[in-house]
Amino acid sequence: MDLGKKLLPLEDRVAIMPLTQEEKTVSGIIIPDTANKEKPNEGKIIAVGPGKLVDGNRVPPELKINDTVLYSKYAGDPIEIDNEEVIIISQDSVLAIIKK
Amino acid sequence: MDLGKKLLPLEDRVAIMPLTQEEKTVSGIIIPDTANKEKPNEGKIIAVGPGKLVDGNRVPPELKINDTVLYSKYAGDPIEIDNEEVIIISQDSVLAIIKK
Amino acid sequence: MDLGKKLLPLEDRVAIMPLTQEEKTVSGIIIPDTANKEKPNEGKIIAVGPGKLVDGNRVPPELKINDTVLYSKYAGDPIEIDNEEVIIISQDSVLAIIKK
Amino acid sequence: MDLGKKLLPLEDRVAIMPLTQEEKTVSGIIIPDTANKEKPNEGKIIAVGPGKLVDGNRVPPELKINDTVLYSKYAGDPIEIDNEEVIIISQDSVLAIIKK
Amino acid sequence: MDLGKKLLPLEDRVAIMPLTQEEKTVSGIIIPDTANKEKPNEGKIIAVGPGKLVDGNRVPPELKINDTVLYSKYAGDPIEIDNEEVIIISQDSVLAIIKK
Amino acid sequence: MDLGKKLLPLEDRVAIMPLTQEEKTVSGIIIPDTANKEKPNEGKIIAVGPGKLVDGNRVPPELKINDTVLYSKYAGDPIEIDNEEVIIISQDSVLAIIKK
Amino acid sequence: MDLGKKLLPLEDRVAIMPLTQEEKTVSGIIIPDTANKEKPNEGKIIAVGPGKLVDGNRVPPELKINDTVLYSKYAGDPIEIDNEEVIIISQDSVLAIIKK
Repeated sequence: MDLGKKLLPLEDRVAIMPLTQEEKTVSGIIIPDTANKEKPNEGKIIAVGPGKLVDGNRVPPELKINDTVLYSKYAGDPIEIDNEEVIIISQDSVLAIIKK
Repeated sequence: MDLGKKLLPLEDRVAIMPLTQEEKTVSGIIIPDTANKEKPNEGKIIAVGPGKLVDGNRVPPELKINDTVLYSKYAGDPIEIDNEEVIIISQDSVLAIIKK
Repeated sequence: MDLGKKLLPLEDRVAIMPLTQEEKTVSGIIIPDTANKEKPNEGKIIAVGPGKLVDGNRVPPELKINDTVLYSKYAGDPIEIDNEEVIIISQDSVLAIIKK
Repeated sequence: MDLGKKLLPLEDRVAIMPLTQEEKTVSGIIIPDTANKEKPNEGKIIAVGPGKLVDGNRVPPELKINDTVLYSKYAGDPIEIDNEEVIIISQDSVLAIIKK
Repeated sequence: MDLGKKLLPLEDRVAIMPLTQEEKTVSGIIIPDTANKEKPNEGKIIAVGPGKLVDGNRVPPELKINDTVLYSKYAGDPIEIDNEEVIIISQDSVLAIIKK
Repeated sequence: MDLGKKLLPLEDRVAIMPLTQEEKTVSGIIIPDTANKEKPNEGKIIAVGPGKLVDGNRVPPELKINDTVLYSKYAGDPIEIDNEEVIIISQDSVLAIIKK
Repeated sequence: MDLGKKLLPLEDRVAIMPLTQEEKTVSGIIIPDTANKEKPNEGKIIAVGPGKLVDGNRVPPELKINDTVLYSKYAGDPIEIDNEEVIIISQDSVLAIIKK
């Protein structure tokens, strides 16, 4: 079942499912293990909020479902849906889209 | 009795009644127990404020009564009404609506 | 004598007289005793400021005299008038109105 | 001599002469002695600045000379004029006017 | 020689030459010696910047050369010109003009 | 393969590949080794985001692919693509372009 | 060779070459050695950025090449070009121009 359909993130938040170690190896992007830094992580967008409200209008989100992204681990809130870890995070904390 | 009818949250605040452990199991969403993180929690909206005042107009709230939501535990203020725990919290601290 | 008549709070501040323990029991709302949290408190509005000045106009206050409210203990300044404790507090720190 | 005439506070600042203990007793307002809080204090306005400059206009001050006020002790800067203590403080740190 | 002529403060900064102890006694304003507070100091304006740039226009400074002022010691940067101490400080940190 | 083509930084972020020690020697710019400071680093821009959204329009980025830049080490997030270290960083944290 | 020509500072940054001790003596301005303060320093502007972007326009910089300035040591980033120390710093951290 599509876990993203269970969630409607608010404002400019998105829901991200982190990639498994094997999926990361395929993408060719690895997050180095540095002791003193909050390391970014890699995941797939499974739900997208309506965007931040600015002067009465929603700012359309830059991200869409199925985008693979790098995101800052520090800012997100981890939850679990049907035993899968999902991160709810502001789009401001998503660093880049990984292109295919 | 409807506890939410006893409260009118101010500005963009809402009142949330946390789900019991059994109710959470039904929703299929579990908050993992991570030691170093403020974990989000799950609850039901029982009262909604009029929205934040911006340039003389109230921003209509995204949330409505009976929505099941994930919210950040860190920001809310816990109170007790008729022996039930209720959280008063800004909508900015509500992460997502759980759809049914 | 009406203590609120002795005070004109400035900007968006209000003056609150905290409820006694017996008055709180009547309202049916209890603030739980949690060790690691600034607990909100319950009180009655006895004086209301003119509202914050935004772009040359006063924002009319949402609160009025005799409202029973929940407020954050952390932000207010306690004073004493005729041996009664009174809290001067910004409306932003008032969480909700308790309806009757 | 009028000490306030020696000072022109800048922006939205005012000069306050703290009340003596006897003067406070007359006003009927006492600041309780709580260990963990910055307690507000009571005083008389002796000089008023021109107001903050917003979009090219001065915001007219809410306070005037001879107002008795409650003010936050934390924010003000104490000076001494002719052996009298005077506080220079932003109007934002004045909590309320004490009415007579 | 006029030391102020050697300096053009930028934005809303001014240059202040602190008063000597004897000059302070003449002004009748003394800064009390309180242990836990950043005490303000007294000095004479010797150079004035063009003012802060807001929406393309310079906000004209409230201070002028030869004003005697009270200023917050905490914010200024001390330099030395021809063996005289001079403070470069933002106008926001000047508390009041001492009138004569 | 062009690593930058694998990444689309979001908002005003860029992706930077740090110069090797030999490449730095050629540019003639060296970052001194000071103990108490976050030292800037030197690198080449390999991907550029669309720019920050301000009032509905993207602010065009000042940087372009192949620019050699100095950037603050403190703000960036290090990742690894095909065994090469890449930094994702806000343009605000890029200090200067090194001209050739 | 002109070191400033090797650098294009971004936004409202400038590049400053600190004066040597002998050059400072000539200018007649000395930075006192106070233990508890970030002391300002003296230097010559060798490169100027295009200015900060505000509402779509660059704010023209107040500083120009060859200005001798006082700047706050705390905010700048030190680099080395051809064995000469250079500071990249925001114009906001430049305190004053030293006139000749």
